[in-house]
Amino acid sequence: MSYKNFPMVPRVIFGRGSFNQLNDILEPKRLNSKAPFIFLVDDVFKGNAWLTSRVPLSYDDRIIFISANEEPKTSQVDALVEDIILTTKERPSGIIGIGGGTLLDLAKAVAIMLTNEGEAKDYQGWDLVKNEAIYHVGIPTISGTGAEVSRTTVLTGPEKKLGINSDYTPFDQVVLDSELTKDVPKAQWFYTGMDCFIHCVESLEGSYLNAFSQSYGEKAYDLCKEIFLNGTLDETEAQEKLMMASWHGGMSIAYSQVGIAHAMSYGLAYLLGTKHGIGNCIVFDHLEEFYPEGVKLFKEMKEKHNISLPQGLCANLTDADFNILVNIAYGLEPLWENALGKNWKTIMTPGKLISLYKKM
Amino acid sequence: MSYKNFPMVPRVIFGRGSFNQLNDILEPKRLNSKAPFIFLVDDVFKGNAWLTSRVPLSYDDRIIFISANEEPKTSQVDALVEDIILTTKERPSGIIGIGGGTLLDLAKAVAIMLTNEGEAKDYQGWDLVKNEAIYHVGIPTISGTGAEVSRTTVLTGPEKKLGINSDYTPFDQVVLDSELTKDVPKAQWFYTGMDCFIHCVESLEGSYLNAFSQSYGEKAYDLCKEIFLNGTLDETEAQEKLMMASWHGGMSIAYSQVGIAHAMSYGLAYLLGTKHGIGNCIVFDHLEEFYPEGVKLFKEMKEKHNISLPQGLCANLTDADFNILVNIAYGLEPLWENALGKNWKTIMTPGKLISLYKKM
Repeated sequence: MSYKNFPMVPRVIFGRGSFNQLNDILEPKRLNSKAPFIFLVDDVFKGNAWLTSRVPLSYDDRIIFISANEEPKTSQVDALVEDIILTTKERPSGIIGIGGGTLLDLAKAVAIMLTNEGEAKDYQGWDLVKNEAIYHVGIPTISGTGAEVSRTTVLTGPEKKLGINSDYTPFDQVVLDSELTKDVPKAQWFYTGMDCFIHCVESLEGSYLNAFSQSYGEKAYDLCKEIFLNGTLDETEAQEKLMMASWHGGMSIAYSQVGIAHAMSYGLAYLLGTKHGIGNCIVFDHLEEFYPEGVKLFKEMKEKHNISLPQGLCANLTDADFNILVNIAYGLEPLWENALGKNWKTIMTPGKLISLYKKM
Repeated sequence: MSYKNFPMVPRVIFGRGSFNQLNDILEPKRLNSKAPFIFLVDDVFKGNAWLTSRVPLSYDDRIIFISANEEPKTSQVDALVEDIILTTKERPSGIIGIGGGTLLDLAKAVAIMLTNEGEAKDYQGWDLVKNEAIYHVGIPTISGTGAEVSRTTVLTGPEKKLGINSDYTPFDQVVLDSELTKDVPKAQWFYTGMDCFIHCVESLEGSYLNAFSQSYGEKAYDLCKEIFLNGTLDETEAQEKLMMASWHGGMSIAYSQVGIAHAMSYGLAYLLGTKHGIGNCIVFDHLEEFYPEGVKLFKEMKEKHNISLPQGLCANLTDADFNILVNIAYGLEPLWENALGKNWKTIMTPGKLISLYKKM
């Protein structure tokens, strides 16, 4: 048996208002005045001086605002890299992602593709990256995905939705300032938080589980219950705890694997462009057969927060569409094996999978 | 308010038997054939082929066996560094510590002192280290101290017992193989495990607490209860979970601080050479006034495992001795402030402190 030698984020700052220390963190990393820092920022912050005025810009540093309305794409990464190469005098000193999972994944991918030849799609998979990425920093403004600690950056390519999993993917620095999450709209807060909760259920119920993942997963699971069910936390506490839940949830799947909801929601994302958080919720809502306890709690949380999920997503799909869904979901073998064991194909037949999709 | 930008162990491997992968981990880090790896190994493993035959030795690599019967000393670090410099052709490729907190702290300190001038005692304190340490790896064989993740290496110097706290202190790599802890004697297992439990109580009850530390501390606390009180785990599970408890407990104090038991046991260590784990237990046993819930649980655990702590440690001390205890303990201001707030000196007067020591 061989174990993974897991790369972790080597530096983290935690605290309400720690975003104000960004300049102190970045300046020692500036290579020279011609090598700028490029900030990839969720465009919900465009015109929001509370945040943007605190992004420390010097020399040729630049903010690029990016919409997170769609899942990040390999072509988007390639275009960003080309734009950065064409508009900077030297290779940048660093890439700083400020946003939710989409922005964080884009920042990781851009940092990798600035030092690796070819197109982002060539690196979707496991350990295909050859050269160290440039210095990259992750600053979450929504909590739940775990993208701030993960060893992957999930991208939709021309052929598949799959992460660039590599030792060079994790951020060199993370800033955990829960104040940045204070204006997340309620539905988004719920969907992204549930991404974390679903990670934990899938990790804790999976066959890949070990004591390392379990300890992180249990903590994140408990924090989610505290935040989404118990309801005695004040707002700041709840934001700080959700930030930690996301962190621990990300660590939990780092050393194990996710499961059925993720595999199926990848299909929805690829075919219909369904965003990751809401996609996971839509799928998980119908998985009581596989995760009875987790789905029960999920439904309680959904009700408590008055969340109504979209229905009939797959109502008008053709047989060809269902085949695409099955193909994408089936491609994620480790997720199925983690959830259902070696013989997962005998349990989750294409017919069974389609019947589940048809409920959504 | 300024927050600490905390350095974390950037790479970890977890799993029963992962020690077998040590060669694969180290070889890419070998600078050249004249730059050896130096393994500092607890001398309880001397003649234990099960472990030593798996230490991968090539070229001029060398094992140095070290007794952990005494707390690590600055003079011991200096002697090791001198020995290594005199007996190696080039600066080593790395230092690998294999043992409990003593060996791990020695490995961290030696790695620092190989690139920094002067004596180890000159670096006891906060952020005094100027140059990056050489590559260093921590492989715990006893769980509880958290030395495998901490940003300090606690040493007894000529004037004080105090850590070398620096961004260069944490290990570059940690190997968490719970099988290495299988032969720890029961009393040692208990004392070192309680070091973790006491960390957590002190961190969770302290005024420096924040959501980051709290989430790690609560998990480690829960794991300790599961291991030391509930008693339904099999041996392997208990070893794996204690390894994770130590890890999370170390992370918890990394971003907060310990408290009264640690401050007082530092005094005992300095004056009487009391080892850290047992010293913490001896002190904590008398702190019900300050940590009622934690001490109650501690006493239950002690009883369950038939542990009898040494009594009368301070019975024959002179007034001069008590003054030393008070001076050493008082020197650890952040610990007291964490435990009792800004006005700690009005609560923990010298007289009060001596009356507590007299019970031990």
